[in-house]
Amino acid sequence: MDSQNYSTSEFRVFYEDTDVSGFVYHSKYFNFCERARSEMFFKLGLSPINNNSHFVVSEIKNAKFIKPAKFGEVLTVQTQTLAVKKCSILLKQTIFKNEMKFFEMKFFEMEILLAHLQGEKIAKIPEEIAKIFQ
Amino acid sequence: MDSQNYSTSEFRVFYEDTDVSGFVYHSKYFNFCERARSEMFFKLGLSPINNNSHFVVSEIKNAKFIKPAKFGEVLTVQTQTLAVKKCSILLKQTIFKNEMKFFEMKFFEMEILLAHLQGEKIAKIPEEIAKIFQ
Amino acid sequence: MDSQNYSTSEFRVFYEDTDVSGFVYHSKYFNFCERARSEMFFKLGLSPINNNSHFVVSEIKNAKFIKPAKFGEVLTVQTQTLAVKKCSILLKQTIFKNEMKFFEMKFFEMEILLAHLQGEKIAKIPEEIAKIFQ
Amino acid sequence: MDSQNYSTSEFRVFYEDTDVSGFVYHSKYFNFCERARSEMFFKLGLSPINNNSHFVVSEIKNAKFIKPAKFGEVLTVQTQTLAVKKCSILLKQTIFKNEMKFFEMKFFEMEILLAHLQGEKIAKIPEEIAKIFQ
Repeated sequence: MDSQNYSTSEFRVFYEDTDVSGFVYHSKYFNFCERARSEMFFKLGLSPINNNSHFVVSEIKNAKFIKPAKFGEVLTVQTQTLAVKKCSILLKQTIFKNEMKFFEMKFFEMEILLAHLQGEKIAKIPEEIAKIFQ
Repeated sequence: MDSQNYSTSEFRVFYEDTDVSGFVYHSKYFNFCERARSEMFFKLGLSPINNNSHFVVSEIKNAKFIKPAKFGEVLTVQTQTLAVKKCSILLKQTIFKNEMKFFEMKFFEMEILLAHLQGEKIAKIPEEIAKIFQ
Repeated sequence: MDSQNYSTSEFRVFYEDTDVSGFVYHSKYFNFCERARSEMFFKLGLSPINNNSHFVVSEIKNAKFIKPAKFGEVLTVQTQTLAVKKCSILLKQTIFKNEMKFFEMKFFEMEILLAHLQGEKIAKIPEEIAKIFQ
Repeated sequence: MDSQNYSTSEFRVFYEDTDVSGFVYHSKYFNFCERARSEMFFKLGLSPINNNSHFVVSEIKNAKFIKPAKFGEVLTVQTQTLAVKKCSILLKQTIFKNEMKFFEMKFFEMEILLAHLQGEKIAKIPEEIAKIFQ
């Protein structure tokens, strides 16, 4: 895989991310993925909300909960762009155990379709924003 | 639709469910759906965790974020059983605006596959639990 | 205690409210109290955010975590007004186990000072809002 | 202030930490403080839960919400030990705006009393754990 094709961020699993089962609460994997998408902007000194322009989640396809993550673990979220269209972006996001990226250490993966809004209306993705994901 | 085929629960959108966009944070729809699944047990005087037997989310397919919900709204979560297998259950969950169930008032829908565990191992769904979803 | 002096709301403890310790995550008691304060408005057909007028938490005093609550329990939040001032309200909020209100069944209590804002500025509490808490 | 007397950790404010008011949801400041306490263990290669020994929040005193934090900001949590007793620890935790630590940039501060448990019983803090906070 070409290194220009994906971005990674790391997040610790804290108490608040776990539940009584002893593992990460299922919907928190979506939060970790969202934090990784936001970090793609922050790392460039930008914000995900810019002049009222922002992305919203439109669809999540094939989210697979492969192995449960535990309190204290550091998760690596990998974000790969599958397609950049006029008003939407399709990403693949995968959560690995930190350090190694063997298949056995995959916690979660999904495909996510994001729609670009200007205010509350679907709008063309500005060139400089599209570049972040290309 | 036959009333025996689905269960409904209602939940208010509180401050904590919203974010700076002004609407419900995307992964919270999964939480509302999980609460509705748990309520199916609680309503019968049972618990979703019973003698170490419980369900975990295995896959989420085709989650569609149709319309964003707002602070203060009461959401109706409808849970429909699509299939009960030996060790797993496939559900369709839909979140509507309270009161009416017109198509225009649908916020969210998904298909979710739950695996049944005994301790940390995949295990046969006990008869009395399978009945809850049939 | 005079029934006009306090308001109560009930909330179920769901998976998302618990953590790996097996009990409710500590800061969630503040969330349950906030939901109870919001319900005081919703029950009257009002919203806690009204023409840009709303309350923010200014201080929390003497929050006591008396007994941990568990998954599935129904919590009763009792809200008592201690003082209504020009631009702020002092409340006492207590979380009990549902059904009974014996001392042994108290999970949590605190005193909370709320400041009233109009936009981002401290402002006089409108008469009709002050009434909700009197 | 002596640098041995306090520990600091940094956390980004993500979408999930904010609410419809446009700022961080009030109880999330307690979460940021808890993450900072947990990081004190993780940084040393330890876990806050060790052989069934762990801390629980017993009291929160004088929590002051000084200035609201915004989406995207990086918060610095400073943890200072006020007292280490046989079975409890009293900490002061302060949340600053990253980079500068001027008074004007303080978001939040509180005193928090933590009780040490072995299983579900109050128990003496082991020497090596007490050292982390001294």
